[in-house]
Parts: sequence; C-alpha cells; structure tokens
Amino acid sequence: MKILISQLNLKTLDYDYNLNLMRNSLDRSNSDVLTVFPELSLCGSPLYDMSRYGTLPVDCINRAEVLCSEKKDFIFGLCVGEDGKKYNSLAFVSSGELKSISTKRNLSMFDEGFDSGRGFEVTEYGDKTLAFGFLEDLEDFVATSKKADVVVCVGSIVFEPERQHRLLLSLLPLVRRLSCPFVFVNRAGAEGRYVFNGGSFVLNSNGNISVQLPFFVQEETFVDTERLGNMQQRAVPRLELLHGAIITGLRDYFWKNGIRKAVVGLSGGIDSALVVALAAEALGRENVIGVLLPSEYSTSHSIEDARNSAEKLGIKYHIMPIKDIFSSTLEVLSPVFDGLAADVAEENLQSRIRGLLLMGIANKIGAAVLNTSNKSEVAVGYGTLYGDTIGGIGAIGDLYKKDVWDLSRWINRNGEIIPENSITKEPSAELRPGQKDTDSLPAYSILDKVLEMYIEGGKTEAEIEKAGFDRDTVRKITRLVKINEWKRRQAAPSLKLSSCTFGIDRLTPIS
Amino acid sequence: MKILISQLNLKTLDYDYNLNLMRNSLDRSNSDVLTVFPELSLCGSPLYDMSRYGTLPVDCINRAEVLCSEKKDFIFGLCVGEDGKKYNSLAFVSSGELKSISTKRNLSMFDEGFDSGRGFEVTEYGDKTLAFGFLEDLEDFVATSKKADVVVCVGSIVFEPERQHRLLLSLLPLVRRLSCPFVFVNRAGAEGRYVFNGGSFVLNSNGNISVQLPFFVQEETFVDTERLGNMQQRAVPRLELLHGAIITGLRDYFWKNGIRKAVVGLSGGIDSALVVALAAEALGRENVIGVLLPSEYSTSHSIEDARNSAEKLGIKYHIMPIKDIFSSTLEVLSPVFDGLAADVAEENLQSRIRGLLLMGIANKIGAAVLNTSNKSEVAVGYGTLYGDTIGGIGAIGDLYKKDVWDLSRWINRNGEIIPENSITKEPSAELRPGQKDTDSLPAYSILDKVLEMYIEGGKTEAEIEKAGFDRDTVRKITRLVKINEWKRRQAAPSLKLSSCTFGIDRLTPIS
Repeated sequence: MKILISQLNLKTLDYDYNLNLMRNSLDRSNSDVLTVFPELSLCGSPLYDMSRYGTLPVDCINRAEVLCSEKKDFIFGLCVGEDGKKYNSLAFVSSGELKSISTKRNLSMFDEGFDSGRGFEVTEYGDKTLAFGFLEDLEDFVATSKKADVVVCVGSIVFEPERQHRLLLSLLPLVRRLSCPFVFVNRAGAEGRYVFNGGSFVLNSNGNISVQLPFFVQEETFVDTERLGNMQQRAVPRLELLHGAIITGLRDYFWKNGIRKAVVGLSGGIDSALVVALAAEALGRENVIGVLLPSEYSTSHSIEDARNSAEKLGIKYHIMPIKDIFSSTLEVLSPVFDGLAADVAEENLQSRIRGLLLMGIANKIGAAVLNTSNKSEVAVGYGTLYGDTIGGIGAIGDLYKKDVWDLSRWINRNGEIIPENSITKEPSAELRPGQKDTDSLPAYSILDKVLEMYIEGGKTEAEIEKAGFDRDTVRKITRLVKINEWKRRQAAPSLKLSSCTFGIDRLTPIS
Repeated sequence: MKILISQLNLKTLDYDYNLNLMRNSLDRSNSDVLTVFPELSLCGSPLYDMSRYGTLPVDCINRAEVLCSEKKDFIFGLCVGEDGKKYNSLAFVSSGELKSISTKRNLSMFDEGFDSGRGFEVTEYGDKTLAFGFLEDLEDFVATSKKADVVVCVGSIVFEPERQHRLLLSLLPLVRRLSCPFVFVNRAGAEGRYVFNGGSFVLNSNGNISVQLPFFVQEETFVDTERLGNMQQRAVPRLELLHGAIITGLRDYFWKNGIRKAVVGLSGGIDSALVVALAAEALGRENVIGVLLPSEYSTSHSIEDARNSAEKLGIKYHIMPIKDIFSSTLEVLSPVFDGLAADVAEENLQSRIRGLLLMGIANKIGAAVLNTSNKSEVAVGYGTLYGDTIGGIGAIGDLYKKDVWDLSRWINRNGEIIPENSITKEPSAELRPGQKDTDSLPAYSILDKVLEMYIEGGKTEAEIEKAGFDRDTVRKITRLVKINEWKRRQAAPSLKLSSCTFGIDRLTPIS
C-alpha cells in the first residue's frame, strides 16, 4: 500500500486555509496513493468550547464535499454531527467517495465538546484490509483481535520531553500483536500554548521504526508499506527538542495571530537574553525590538550585558530609563506612601513601569510583548503581577532555571550568541541596591530540584524531605507555590514544555 | 427521623477549620439527631488538581477519627483512598462508629482527580431505612426502585440565577417516585470565583418544600421528617439573589485570603460606583479605599460623581491625577512614539497608569484591588489589559451592563446609595476628549442582547440575525468576542454569576 503521510500545520477554525493545504497534498499524490491527514485536519484543534457550536459539523461537511471533488484516496479528520451528537471523526475516502468513518471512542483532553463514538473501522482498500482510527482507540481495536494488512492511526500528540519515547514504548506491544505495518500521523505546528510534536512515523510489522518524520514542522513523505526496512534512529537530545519546540511555538503564535513584531525587555539577565535570542531566530532579527529599562538600582554591567545581547543578535534596541516615571509615580502616591518604610511595593512599581513601557511600545507598533519569566519564578511567585508577568506568550515559562542556563549554553555551542556573562553571573532582579535572588529564595540548584519533585513528580512534602532536603526549605517552597496561584492565573500564558504545566496540568484554588 | 441540616461555609484544605465547625455542630445536637454535613465537608472544595496528591485521603482519615470520637450520628463528606484510587465519599456514622460509605459514581465539574465510585448507599438507622448519597447519583438510585424511609442527598450547587428553580424542577419527578421525605444539603459561602448556593431544603413525600434554608450563608436547622408540612415559598427576586451572591463572594474572597482592605478605582461611572458600594457592604466601609485617578480628559462631572460615590458611602478616598506620570511616560517613549499619530496606545497608557497606582496602594497597605469590569466589556475586549483588567477578584465581571444598571437601581431602592447621575449618564471611558462607549461599540441595549444570545444562549450568528439583529452588528460583536480571548485569559478572575462564565464555562483558542 502506498501512503502519503501529510504531517500538516493546521490553523484552528480556519477551514479554507486547512482545505487549501490538503488540496495541495492531494494534487501531489497519484491515484494509487492513500494520503493520510492528521486528526481534525479540516477544522484544526484544540477547539475548546468552540466545539459546542452548531456550525462546526456543518462547516466541516461543506469543506469535505470540496475535498471529495478531488477524485483521490485519502483519510482526513473532521467533526461529524449525528442525532444532536458531535463526533471527532476520521473519514476514509476512495476515488472521491466516502467509504467509512471512524468516530473517536476514548475521548481525551482536546475532545471536550465531543460525544463518545464507535472507535476503529476496518475497510477494504484495493485488495488489502485497512484498519484506521484514533490513537486513543488503538488498544480497544487490538483487543478485538481483528486482522488488517495495514493499520493507520492519527493523534494529536503535544510536545513534552520524552513524549515520543513513551509513545513508542506504549505502542510496541500493541503493534507486535497487530503484526502488520503501522502508520501514525501526528500534527505539526503550534496553537496557543500547545506545540504539536510532529514526528509521525511508520513501524514495520516487527515493531521497528521504518520511517520517521521531523518533529514540530510540516512535512510530507511517501511510504510503501510493502517495503519497510529498519531505520537507524537518531536520539534527538533534550535541549535540541526544547529549542525546536520553542521556536515553533513562538513562530506559530505570531503567525497565527497575524502579528509580525515582538518586544522584549532586556535586563542583562539570562532569562531575557535567552528569550530575545529565541525570538530573533523564530521571527527574524528585523522583527524583534529589545528594550533596556534601567532603574537607579541597575548595575552598569547589567546595562552592558543587555546591550551586548541585542548587539550580538543585530536587533534594534531602545534604552528607556524608568527613573523619572518612578519619581513621578512616588510623588503621586505620597499621600499613601509617606511615612511608611520602603518595601516590596516600591519594587513592584518599578517592574510595572517596565511593563507599562513595553506594552506602550507594542501597542504603538502593533507588536506583542514576549514574556521572559521562567518556571522556577512562576512556581514561587518571584515576579511582579502586571510587571514581570506580562506578554502575549511566554517562551520559557515552563523551563526551570537550570534548563534556562543549559539551553543558553546549548545555543552558544558553536559561538557566543548569548553573552557568556549573562549565563555565568549571579541572578538578581536589581529592584533594590545589591539585591540577589537568593535573598528571598533558596539557591536554584535546590529550588529547581524540590520544585520538580513537587510539580512534575507529584511528591508530598514528606517524600521530598525523605529524599534529603531540609524540612523548612521544602515547606517554604511548597507554601510559596500554593499562595501564588492567583498570580499565575493572570500571568501571560507560556508554551507547554513539560509534563506538568501551570495553568494546564496543574490548577489549585485561589483562596 | 430528627435531622440537623448543617449548611456550612467550609475552607478548602483547611481541615482543622472545617473539623472545628463540624464539632461545634455535633455539640449542639442530641444523640437522637442525625447531623448532615455538606459534600467534602472535611477538606472543602473545589480542590482542582490538589486532589491528585497522596496526602488528601490520609489527611481526611486522620480528622475523620477525631470526628468519630464524638459519639454522635452524622453524615459527612471526605476523600477516601482505596487500592490507589480516590473517591469523593459520604460517610454515615452512628454513635461514633462508621457504618457505611457512599462513593460518588457520576463525577461532575469539581471531581477532576476522583475515580468513579458505587453511588447511593442504603442503611438501617434506628427502625428506619436511610438512603444517602450524592445529588449526581440520585437518578441512578431512583432507577433501582429501592425503598427508603428517608433519602439524604448532598451536592455542591454553585450559584446561577434560576439554578435553584431548575434543581427543584429536576428533582420533583425523582422525589415523587421515591415517595418519602428528601433532605438536600448544600454548601454555603464562596471559594475563589464560585459562590455556593446554600438554600438546602427538605421536600416532603409529595415533593413539596417543607423547609428551606437561606441562600449563600452558613446556617443550621433541625428537621423532623415525621412532621413535614408545606411551606409557603417566597420567590427571591433575581437582583436580590445577584446581590447576595456578590456580597458573599467578595466577603469570602477577602476573608479566606486573609486580606482585610479593598482598593477601588472610582471613575464616576456606574461600574466602579456599583463595585465600591458592594465592597463597602461586604467588607465594611472602614475597609474600602476609593481612588479617583483623573486624567486631562476626565470631565468635572465625573470627578464630582466619583467623589460623591465615596462620600455617600462614607469611605476614605484619595484623588491622584495621572497627568504627570502620563507626561513622563510619553517623554520616555518619545523615541518610539514621535511622529506617529495618537491612537489606542496612548489610551491604554492612561488605563495602565491607573492600574499602576491602584496596585501600588494595595501593595503598600496589604490590600487587594477590586476589578470593576462588566461582562459586556469583558466579552468584546473593551478595556485595557493590565489596566482595567487588574484586581484580585472581579465583582461584576459576569454581569452585562443592563444588570449593572438594574442592580444599582435595586441598591438605591430605599434611598440614594449610588449617585443617580452615575446611573443615568451615558457611559464613557474618558480616555480622549468627548469619548463615548458608543463610538466603538453598539448601544448596550443591542450589545447585551446579542451577547446573551451568543454566550449564554449558544446561538450561531445566523440564528441571532434571524432574531432581528443587523448582520454587520452581529458579525462585529462575535468577531470581537473571538479575538479578545487572549485578554480574558490574563484578566482578573471574577465571581461566577451566570450560566456561562468566561474562563470557566467558555474557553476559546488564543491564536
């Protein structure tokens, strides 16, 4: 069986864009080729509550008819309405004629508005038996012990490090029981916080990988299921994957929102230095504007590092000291502030003035601000709401500080793109004289480990203490995580890059 | 059967607080009384992802043992762990001894981390047969046709106008089939965005209401199921319910977060005038600080109305003109702004400077800012992110503008609490000379109706047009709703007051 795997980067609810992509693919395939498109390829996903609307199945069917006018063989995703129910569906079309439909039975996170369907379908295709359906329904199908010559499966796998590895591990026993070629087609590209993994693949009947498409990006590959060898797989290093996911996430966020330019505040610290480097790569250096926003507490080396980071990338930058705005703000606030000791209120003002300026620039030139918070900060609320937390999308908000350093070094592997000094110096918010992050927080080497056990690991405080961490430190960290949920609820959304992302996988009460 | 209905206002994950409340109730009841506590009464709810943590069942069981040391009869809610699964459970205890447990079978919105259990339990209590369980499982129990002398049911009904009415309508046929007294115990108080409805009730075997507890507030009532009459029900008007829900929501948000004082920006418009009046009632006028933040575009009548609104309530207020900060901000931004026409960027700056000042005051005095956006604005994105959208909690963010006016008039029913001029004048953001809301938006009389059909009604654009609205107006409104989701994702959470609340019941893609 000849198959064209079409790993497309779809746009949610942009039917005509998606239809056009699919028609282009069909134009490239001959009449003896079965083209396989991703899940919900006509309408895109995630749909969230948009799937509750009655127009979804109608809009899908209208475009499906156009698609069928191409007298080709293909499998594509759409929403089908039937008796007041809505199904996440996969349609098999032969010579432009609809032959059968698989409706998803085991619903998962993106299937909120859908009803549970019937699962896999088995159909004749030429002289072969073809089984097709959704990844979530594969186990049920294998359990039926039905036989097929080829199994085609679609899914919407979102990037996480190790996700592809875990997917293959879970598939292996199932594919061995099928003992026939297995074709898996995933989506490419990003939608909002989600980066789809791409990485579609074909396993031969021994369960070995024969074909593997690249991660994240749109790509097509022809496959002949009669001629499947064993492929030598290259294990893609974790940092390379993180880098690819972030670049895809940023690029698609801007492209799909129709925004060209990004504004990044540059402090001279490693977080903003990394984000601006990623932005310049994703959007082009001509589309990234750096803004240095020094206060009276900014050290001269910070300003130097920030300038350096912009100049190395060749991006445009502005220097906008916040001192005068800070003074006039304190002046206006004096009826309340006078006679009270300086505290975190003054520190927050500075961060919010920076937010004010960044948003002012972005609004004026039709750009979006990129958020530069990292996951360690987000977890413990080390950052000012409406100041550090602003932005259209966060690039590194799901990366612990250790990963921020490691990814920066990885980007510098062939030469200094990010100033080395930003990587090696001690982190500071520079909101008061001589301030260091470790004045308020445990060292990142401890903080990150405790957080990872607590957040991704789901461990209890007692379990983390047993692993050798100081009781008071652990309690302090978990307490900060708990009491800062209200800030996270209003912070810029950031790309999902881990197995437990704040605001997606982990919500806690705000009171 | 003598029953004490204990409609408690619980605190999420504050086991000792909840335990104490429950022990106080038991102290008031005799040995021949069955005390019924609400769902998850030991640990509170919603738990969100906190229910994933292994400590939840352990922490519950420890407190349950303390509770059982009171040798009384009672039914209470807790999380039970069994074979690696976690159940939302209801335990029946007689003379301090655990007799049986109902585990929730039909999981609902607050049951994210729980596994599906067995449903209702039937047990002997004295010489009577008692059936007990969760509201969601009642229909299954009725279908079994098992007989009981009394049915006790708990639920976590969150406030929505008409919710209680719809609940009673859905229960009526079930209770008629049971043909025995039916006791429903709900929670009181608010948690974050959710206001629990309270309003626990007893239906006699004819399905008529015999006892009805007040809405929203903590309350206890003794009931003898042998002596249930028919009660004359007072239909509580919608505006009175909305008022009660908001007062409870604000009071509990501040109390449960350990914050005493609220800061409210006063523009002279109706939204902030209503919010500050509600805040003064919920928190006490001594705990509310009004801040007038006039710009060069503020009219003198606005300043007068704002001052009036503070003085009528007898709250403290400050006047902090934003002109100087605005000037120094424009000065700093001149490298970008110079030569470009004034537009929405300048308007947004003013709104964000107001946010900066309100947050500065709140941080300095340990207060929280109250958000004053209404649902009409939130829906179409008519407001500045990090400016109008700031705050710990929103009081009226789930009320359309029409409800804002109506509720204000209702509050003024016995005398002018909110300045009449704020109610009657035409809405304006006053961010440029002579600006009116209707410069950018359709009249609220049209906007609100279209929004309600689209959001709560779930109607398509075509259906709304058929109802008699102009095609272009409808398309403009629904387009604004779609493209402003990114703002809503970062806006202050607001109390849930409708059947379709942004951020809870209606999420859409951000790209």
